[in-house]
Amino acid sequence: MSILSSRSRFAINPLEEDDAIADAIEREGKKVIRLNRGDPAVYFPTPDYIKEAYIEAIKEGKTHYTETRGAEELVEEIISRYKRKFGLSTDPESVVVTQGVSEALYMLNTALLDPGDKAIVFKPYYTQYIPYIGLAGGEEYLLEYKENMGWGIDVEELERHVKRLKHKARIKYVILTNPNNPTGTVLDKKTLKDIVQLANEHDLILVSDEIYDEIVYNGAHFTSISEIAKGIPYIILNGASKNFDSTGFRIGFAIVPGEDKVSMELKKKLFNFASVRVSANAPAQYAVAEGLRNVKEHNKAIKGMVKEIEKRVNFAIKLLNENPYLQTVRPNGAYYIFPRVDLKSLNCKTDKELVDKLLVKEQVQLTRGSGFGMQSHIRIVSLPEKEVLGTAITRLNEFCRKMAK
Amino acid sequence: MSILSSRSRFAINPLEEDDAIADAIEREGKKVIRLNRGDPAVYFPTPDYIKEAYIEAIKEGKTHYTETRGAEELVEEIISRYKRKFGLSTDPESVVVTQGVSEALYMLNTALLDPGDKAIVFKPYYTQYIPYIGLAGGEEYLLEYKENMGWGIDVEELERHVKRLKHKARIKYVILTNPNNPTGTVLDKKTLKDIVQLANEHDLILVSDEIYDEIVYNGAHFTSISEIAKGIPYIILNGASKNFDSTGFRIGFAIVPGEDKVSMELKKKLFNFASVRVSANAPAQYAVAEGLRNVKEHNKAIKGMVKEIEKRVNFAIKLLNENPYLQTVRPNGAYYIFPRVDLKSLNCKTDKELVDKLLVKEQVQLTRGSGFGMQSHIRIVSLPEKEVLGTAITRLNEFCRKMAK
Repeated sequence: MSILSSRSRFAINPLEEDDAIADAIEREGKKVIRLNRGDPAVYFPTPDYIKEAYIEAIKEGKTHYTETRGAEELVEEIISRYKRKFGLSTDPESVVVTQGVSEALYMLNTALLDPGDKAIVFKPYYTQYIPYIGLAGGEEYLLEYKENMGWGIDVEELERHVKRLKHKARIKYVILTNPNNPTGTVLDKKTLKDIVQLANEHDLILVSDEIYDEIVYNGAHFTSISEIAKGIPYIILNGASKNFDSTGFRIGFAIVPGEDKVSMELKKKLFNFASVRVSANAPAQYAVAEGLRNVKEHNKAIKGMVKEIEKRVNFAIKLLNENPYLQTVRPNGAYYIFPRVDLKSLNCKTDKELVDKLLVKEQVQLTRGSGFGMQSHIRIVSLPEKEVLGTAITRLNEFCRKMAK
Repeated sequence: MSILSSRSRFAINPLEEDDAIADAIEREGKKVIRLNRGDPAVYFPTPDYIKEAYIEAIKEGKTHYTETRGAEELVEEIISRYKRKFGLSTDPESVVVTQGVSEALYMLNTALLDPGDKAIVFKPYYTQYIPYIGLAGGEEYLLEYKENMGWGIDVEELERHVKRLKHKARIKYVILTNPNNPTGTVLDKKTLKDIVQLANEHDLILVSDEIYDEIVYNGAHFTSISEIAKGIPYIILNGASKNFDSTGFRIGFAIVPGEDKVSMELKKKLFNFASVRVSANAPAQYAVAEGLRNVKEHNKAIKGMVKEIEKRVNFAIKLLNENPYLQTVRPNGAYYIFPRVDLKSLNCKTDKELVDKLLVKEQVQLTRGSGFGMQSHIRIVSLPEKEVLGTAITRLNEFCRKMAK
């Protein structure tokens, strides 16, 4: 009999074992090109003005706990950002600074889900959503982003499912990832409006994970749920990792701007959760506060990074399009490419077989689609510079040609 | 009907509301002497050599995710520390770096507790233990540290309860806090040996929270569970917050050194939990690695801090002993004093009434014993310098005299 709890089976990262294979290969002295981790700070140095603010906070001795909600000045800067960018009026009681978005996901799911409660999640999903639902005792109800709609959402289909499901179970929330990981899709305003209306009609809480909200390109326009969802309960998840290129700071946040009963209950409960674990890393919070405050420096940094990401993604897309076994929807946000793979022609039974063989034979690490709930796709992180990206995708393309024989 | 989950009721910090009162008083322009938060970095600057290492890590661009288990060099330094100090031989697979001990508590409880499972906790307990047990679906089974044994453990009583309880429920672990918060007690070797033997006989997992293991004085000697518990499954919780005077870094860790079946299952599962949330703050991990590596600088820093804490605690004790309504066991570890209060003579119905009145009338914030499961005690954090501490305790003593009239 196992000593572990039944629920602990949900604490699993399906992609962990691929990392173990890659590590083993590198221990043998071969270099692996890793296109699997969405960590911009490895490829683009965190902006100097943020690092300087971080260093300044340490020098000033800001090395003790902060307020549990988050350092006051960070909370204020988060509020200012949403006012400035999206016209959102909110207050400190609606914000909780978290240790990455992952902690916000833990708090949110544990706060909301009773056994049998459902959370509507679209595939391909961000891997982390699933374990926190299960660990909290809830169940994901999976729908699909539509590949043939450019990975958009079929709101009518969503409505049909909501109507059917609500008689059988309590639907606690619908989570959207916009811009999307792993597809790179930016949802259009019309879709968001329709979803908000649906949520309103059926008393659903909307959760909008907007962590990539400034990494948008190819002419796309990002709409925050906060621009649309007035009067209904919703939660924005965001943080410094991507827009401020500082994944290693582990600073995320949740905003629950509503003043309806559900929002009021939820924002108080998230604060309770924060209070139990005292605070997030202190000097990093002051660094992020400066990251937000210094709009001029930030705009310069983010513009440069996004321009470069756009180039790299489009370069990768061009090479991927030369591969007859892949079919790719062009992304316009984040830095992921999520091609469909013709596994049958490649004589592979599963996406895992393909990804593992590519890793072992060509030392290129991609992520299999099944890590995001899709069995016939691969995810490519397009952050490395063109030369590395080019080498990796050329190896992938040649590998596919060989496999197809 | 509430939108919140049933379990979310456990996410509560019973001391939150007192902070709200203190904040309100300060907004009115009165200064509150806060002897309620055990945050050494507010009173003793984090050592320069650690701050320099932190700054160096930022300058070197170590601002991206680390390994999920913890940065390799930090894990190595943790292993070295336990070898050096306690003769423990362990390996990286047995260590997980966490976002404070609170994250380790979350992982541990969620990994182990099924509904109905029990965790044996001694009162007065560290506040945080309780919510994580309830949130995971388990239940605490409360015993008491014995005030008349200098807040020691009555192992025979523990054994009686274990024997009775094990027929009714699954006991998943027994947690010890050594040195103790809130009593400041350091457990003696004999007690620990008896508990290990008991755990061995009844297949209990021991969890030893040793976060204050270098903050020991008044001639006391600290014994780590790792010196005694060979061959049985046990977990050490520790971190940088207290010994390295860096609460705001949020770097904790868990070690599961055993190679028995239970330990092997548990260490793998803790790693899975870590993998789901990617990593702890990166540059802070490198700072703590240097904190551990540079033994000479560390010994100098910790010696100075502990000497000063010893002086402050003993000074506070002397003043508290002048108060006829308090009865105090002298602490020899951490920096808390936990006097029993003669509430009846003070015409107070509850510890909360006393603490709230003291806060409002004298602007001194203590923590009520009920936050640690004891109704007739108060906790005093003896970190401020003598002058502040003296003012606060003098106010407390005079307040008690007035209340007793």
